[in-house]
Amino acid sequence: MLRVGRMTEVRALCRRARAASRGMAVRDRAEKDAALRAIAAELRARERDLLAANARDVEDARGRGTSGAMLDRLALDPRRLAQMAEAVEQVAALDDPVGAVLSDTVRPNGLRVRRVRVPIGVVAFVYEARPNVTTDASALCLKAGNAVILRGGSDAARSNVVIAGAIADALDRTGLPRDAVQLLPAGDRDAVRELLQQTDTVDLAIPRGSEAFIRFVKEVSRVPVIAHASGVCHLFVDAGADVAMAVRIAHNGKLQRPGVCNALECLLVDASDAARLLPPIARDLIEGGCELRGCERTRQLVPEAKPAADDDWGREFLDRILAVRVVDGLDAALEHVARFGTGHTEAICTRDGSHADRWRREIDAACVVVNASTRFHDGGELGLGAEIGTATSKIHWRGVMGLEGLTTFQWIIDGEGQTRG
Amino acid sequence: MLRVGRMTEVRALCRRARAASRGMAVRDRAEKDAALRAIAAELRARERDLLAANARDVEDARGRGTSGAMLDRLALDPRRLAQMAEAVEQVAALDDPVGAVLSDTVRPNGLRVRRVRVPIGVVAFVYEARPNVTTDASALCLKAGNAVILRGGSDAARSNVVIAGAIADALDRTGLPRDAVQLLPAGDRDAVRELLQQTDTVDLAIPRGSEAFIRFVKEVSRVPVIAHASGVCHLFVDAGADVAMAVRIAHNGKLQRPGVCNALECLLVDASDAARLLPPIARDLIEGGCELRGCERTRQLVPEAKPAADDDWGREFLDRILAVRVVDGLDAALEHVARFGTGHTEAICTRDGSHADRWRREIDAACVVVNASTRFHDGGELGLGAEIGTATSKIHWRGVMGLEGLTTFQWIIDGEGQTRG
Repeated sequence: MLRVGRMTEVRALCRRARAASRGMAVRDRAEKDAALRAIAAELRARERDLLAANARDVEDARGRGTSGAMLDRLALDPRRLAQMAEAVEQVAALDDPVGAVLSDTVRPNGLRVRRVRVPIGVVAFVYEARPNVTTDASALCLKAGNAVILRGGSDAARSNVVIAGAIADALDRTGLPRDAVQLLPAGDRDAVRELLQQTDTVDLAIPRGSEAFIRFVKEVSRVPVIAHASGVCHLFVDAGADVAMAVRIAHNGKLQRPGVCNALECLLVDASDAARLLPPIARDLIEGGCELRGCERTRQLVPEAKPAADDDWGREFLDRILAVRVVDGLDAALEHVARFGTGHTEAICTRDGSHADRWRREIDAACVVVNASTRFHDGGELGLGAEIGTATSKIHWRGVMGLEGLTTFQWIIDGEGQTRG
Repeated sequence: MLRVGRMTEVRALCRRARAASRGMAVRDRAEKDAALRAIAAELRARERDLLAANARDVEDARGRGTSGAMLDRLALDPRRLAQMAEAVEQVAALDDPVGAVLSDTVRPNGLRVRRVRVPIGVVAFVYEARPNVTTDASALCLKAGNAVILRGGSDAARSNVVIAGAIADALDRTGLPRDAVQLLPAGDRDAVRELLQQTDTVDLAIPRGSEAFIRFVKEVSRVPVIAHASGVCHLFVDAGADVAMAVRIAHNGKLQRPGVCNALECLLVDASDAARLLPPIARDLIEGGCELRGCERTRQLVPEAKPAADDDWGREFLDRILAVRVVDGLDAALEHVARFGTGHTEAICTRDGSHADRWRREIDAACVVVNASTRFHDGGELGLGAEIGTATSKIHWRGVMGLEGLTTFQWIIDGEGQTRG
């Protein structure tokens, strides 16, 4: 009986989201921006409640043995809360994607045919992350004219309840449907499963979290999924490359922030120039505190490197560890990436224009980088503003995903009574 | 043992498709167009074989009791075969979507950031349709730089084998990978099920066929699906509408070709003006051989109308039958469409600009039509050229889907050694 009741509840929540999405879709920019600013104000006004709830989340997480870095990401303080509110205001400042005209033609029979950006409808955002993701994702979904169903992780459960309450009240107060942002209770996989069956009311699922969690979502979902999976990013250093540039790009890709999805996980170096290129790159990384795991040819040039195991290729270390392989030229590098890459971000360092062209054309990844750090594949760096994640699916949107990725389009045909002959 | 062997075969076929897709992605327009012209020539050269195989398909279908109209759609003759070849040449004449630049900016740090159209990769096209769909879909997938796995219906099984053979040989002869078009044997649901599990090698599934078939595909697929489902299209005739225009649009929508997905299935008329509008529209449709199934108020104005059953709302008749309902103004019409529409094509006939605006803004469908026939939602009519179907999903592409819908995009970042601070 309890189970049936809970499933009915999930379905009712989704139906409310669908109704709210119809209400959201017709709002103009000013209304949506006013609501976002009200959300920021409401977050600031509830600082005490939110910090108290968060302190209990942190305490519980510590009780479950959660480690220092994870705990730090979960914990809020007045400065972090202020940043969350500011981020929501920054989304308000972004252009409204809804209504943008993607194509506009007049047919020989006088029909005007346009494709116009419209909201997707209801987005289910299922994630295991720190509280600021709750506010970022809500702000993006609302600005794009969608309703969102949030299902956050257990760690931030109490914080998310306060945040979602603040958002709903701000929506209410500014005349927008409060059900446009709803929170599904954390820690209940059956409820997630049920959510992902609601093809009538939920248009898109966006999972963000561990590999295992994303695999679970992809397996059970009957709703379309845009997955934000792992990034096994490579850098290929071509023969003849500028060694100083290669050192800089490798260092930045691996060490600037090793725990994120656009960090470098594997370095490939052309065998014909490896004796010149690899030792200085390796020395710099080792001095930066990085462990190298190399192939045989790597270890001849860099004795400090440990031997790489078979499963170090294609592995997301998310740590100060880098796999290093000497390969026989561009073709072998392309082959390695096709086999071990995850379609996230793939970089080349080269002075050869035709090799750069082949890299751009032959690499099948969300983001292809020539002579720059993989770390640039990021919403802020590419000019999108906030991001809801980085898609490694190939359908609908690829790579870093902001407001545009949260919209779809509609054909609009305007006539004067035309009929088809 | 047989089952294991067959499943292994499906997986091997998908891996060959993946390899072929890498070969296709790097071809320029001239190479792809030459292959398409060679395919057209090969189809013409095999006229005898193809007509003989098709005659056996038709014979078998007749033996299974297939009806006249279905049989007619299946049957090829020299004229239809010539049209199939011409359609492939028409795809060759379309612009190449690959390489189109969707955005191009230079960031403050000098990085150039572009989004560029690229092929999707491997498309699984599963359909139950006449043989020309095999050539149309293959031509579109190849032109967009993809590999395609075709799984046609049992009715056209022998015809499809000859067509797929002609295509593969033409690819071979023009230096393109012959595995870019492969045919999965018809009539084996387990093979389809296996195909739709190949998330490593298949990027997108496009089902086209009966409601039951599409439901099956959506249920079993772990690969992203763009569904081409039913069209329950409405026309709302607003108070004050031009009666002659309303008659023309309703007639064309319902009777020009009743068996297709963009045909009209339900007419809604504003109660406040129904006495003027509905009788002439109804008379014209009845004279055209259409059966009307109306609500109570409809039947008061049109005594010839039969009473509509509850399940006539939201029903795809695909026949000379139309549901008719008198509604209380625009809001009630929008409500009816939101409840019973399938997100395909929704039309309004109105002289009120603000009502037209609300229709464009509040209708959630792939195609919104103002003062024209729903029948215009078609690849040829909207200027796309050939189409692979009409998507009723909201993700990736909506409505009539041609070359652009068969592509995705890639971020390309070009730098001069920039690193992230």
